[in-house]
Amino acid sequence: MNIGMKKLVVGVDIGGTLTKVGIADREGEVLANSQFPTQDYPDLGDYQRYLVQEIRTLEREISGPYELLGLGIGAPNANVYRGTIEHAANLAWQGIVPFVEELSKLIELPIKITNDANAAAIGEKIYGNAADMKDFIVITLGTGLGSGIVSNGQMIYGHDSMAAELGHVVVDPNGRWTGLVQGGLEAYVSSTGLKRTIFALLAESMEDTPFRDVAYNDLHGEYITERAEQGDPIALEAYERTGKILGQHLANFVAFSHPEAFFLLGGLAKSGKWIFEPTQKYMEEALLPFYKGKVKLMASGMTGKNAAILGAAALIWEVQ
Amino acid sequence: MNIGMKKLVVGVDIGGTLTKVGIADREGEVLANSQFPTQDYPDLGDYQRYLVQEIRTLEREISGPYELLGLGIGAPNANVYRGTIEHAANLAWQGIVPFVEELSKLIELPIKITNDANAAAIGEKIYGNAADMKDFIVITLGTGLGSGIVSNGQMIYGHDSMAAELGHVVVDPNGRWTGLVQGGLEAYVSSTGLKRTIFALLAESMEDTPFRDVAYNDLHGEYITERAEQGDPIALEAYERTGKILGQHLANFVAFSHPEAFFLLGGLAKSGKWIFEPTQKYMEEALLPFYKGKVKLMASGMTGKNAAILGAAALIWEVQ
Repeated sequence: MNIGMKKLVVGVDIGGTLTKVGIADREGEVLANSQFPTQDYPDLGDYQRYLVQEIRTLEREISGPYELLGLGIGAPNANVYRGTIEHAANLAWQGIVPFVEELSKLIELPIKITNDANAAAIGEKIYGNAADMKDFIVITLGTGLGSGIVSNGQMIYGHDSMAAELGHVVVDPNGRWTGLVQGGLEAYVSSTGLKRTIFALLAESMEDTPFRDVAYNDLHGEYITERAEQGDPIALEAYERTGKILGQHLANFVAFSHPEAFFLLGGLAKSGKWIFEPTQKYMEEALLPFYKGKVKLMASGMTGKNAAILGAAALIWEVQ
Repeated sequence: MNIGMKKLVVGVDIGGTLTKVGIADREGEVLANSQFPTQDYPDLGDYQRYLVQEIRTLEREISGPYELLGLGIGAPNANVYRGTIEHAANLAWQGIVPFVEELSKLIELPIKITNDANAAAIGEKIYGNAADMKDFIVITLGTGLGSGIVSNGQMIYGHDSMAAELGHVVVDPNGRWTGLVQGGLEAYVSSTGLKRTIFALLAESMEDTPFRDVAYNDLHGEYITERAEQGDPIALEAYERTGKILGQHLANFVAFSHPEAFFLLGGLAKSGKWIFEPTQKYMEEALLPFYKGKVKLMASGMTGKNAAILGAAALIWEVQ
């Protein structure tokens, strides 16, 4: 290892649709990156060979001497202890996939894999707004609600790598089905949850609103934000209810690990004040007396287009 | 430090009524112990001078050469980071008490303080049934519900030492008042919670039961267990409901830190199968598919009369 040689890591984000690959430095600069459709390679061997080829291609874009320290991967249902991807509903590889073991045969680098929400939390610590924090929770609000929990400066993976599934915490035993549980948090608090709440409100009220001209499958988060900005009472009420449920449950989570801050990211978080303001209000109201005023609700610092690659890359920096 | 010299620690449990003091070895033998009424010393200086005198007295009971490695303290509302006891409702010392700082002036030993439920969790690891576990949660079921959470082999204290207040997690926003929150878990799941449920059932039903001859202040846990053993439907239903709420919420906690096991201890846990069986059943039913069959519900190994002293002593062994 030469002094002056650039130290770099590879970050790979495996999504149901796209795989994003990049080479990043410790400061968060992505020196080269690309993407390809995950579904093009339903065979694991084919996929991994193509992935390694992509990494080699990206390496040719790096100028000057460098050293690759490792390869970090964010993937759905990844088990950090076993290096596996297990029963991921959105991926073609079925069952328990020994992803790291197989990939190690193709590339000589330390490889670490974890689920995308945990990668986001490590990314927040390495590259984002949690650099100086030892206790924080990242909540990703996309199609579902993902979470990554850091305590004592360490990721909480739990006994079998399946900790931090806060989207499945039951908030109403008679409530909305999530696909896994009745009344899980993510059925209310996520991009999908917000949309479901809009439709519940269209059923509850007789309010005349342009939402009545939009089909469920055509309704997107951006439009809901737009309607909120126009003062649409259905949009405003939907954000209020969503923030209330999120805020009250963040307060419950505080009683578990007492984080210094929650970071929100993902589609729903992009609506900004519409989700942050009610969440903050109801969280503060619900916090136990000795927590009041002591827990921050913050926007994630991982919002750029390379956020997923950097989250994956952070897995390697974390152990340097 | 001589080889062959016994290594010992002092454990102190400060309760609202009694202070228990003991000298223990790494194997869990308490070589000398005593207790005195906490309330006899409303002045902190007087209390600490008496405590040190007690320790010196106990030391004279130790035969052979020994070395004291430190002094561990379990106390309500103790802040592990600051070494303070803060606003403890059951103690005479008001406000924020710099307990460790003051005690350090009277005795030359490393001193560590934490709250009693955290001490119980560390005790479980050092002396109890969690020796080989890195991820577990101890739930103490006494007057209230206390908890201590261990993840990655470490206590979760959180940003300001107030993590693991699971008794205050809201289980029903319109439910019973705990003294701190509406509908907190401990209002249902604790010795007091069980008693409240008995009284709720006496109101709900017209069941003829000997409970109708017992005043609230005269009702104790042992009697409820005794009635359950007699097949009293009110007692049976009270345990069922208590176990249901506990089991369902343990399942939620699993989605947070994915422990290998929960340990129950304290008054309510002493009722044995009456509380363990429904809790186990409802927890298993409510667990997410990937947790089912993977989380143990166990009795604490810290049940002897010296449990509190050993929990406090364990604070010192933990850092050896």
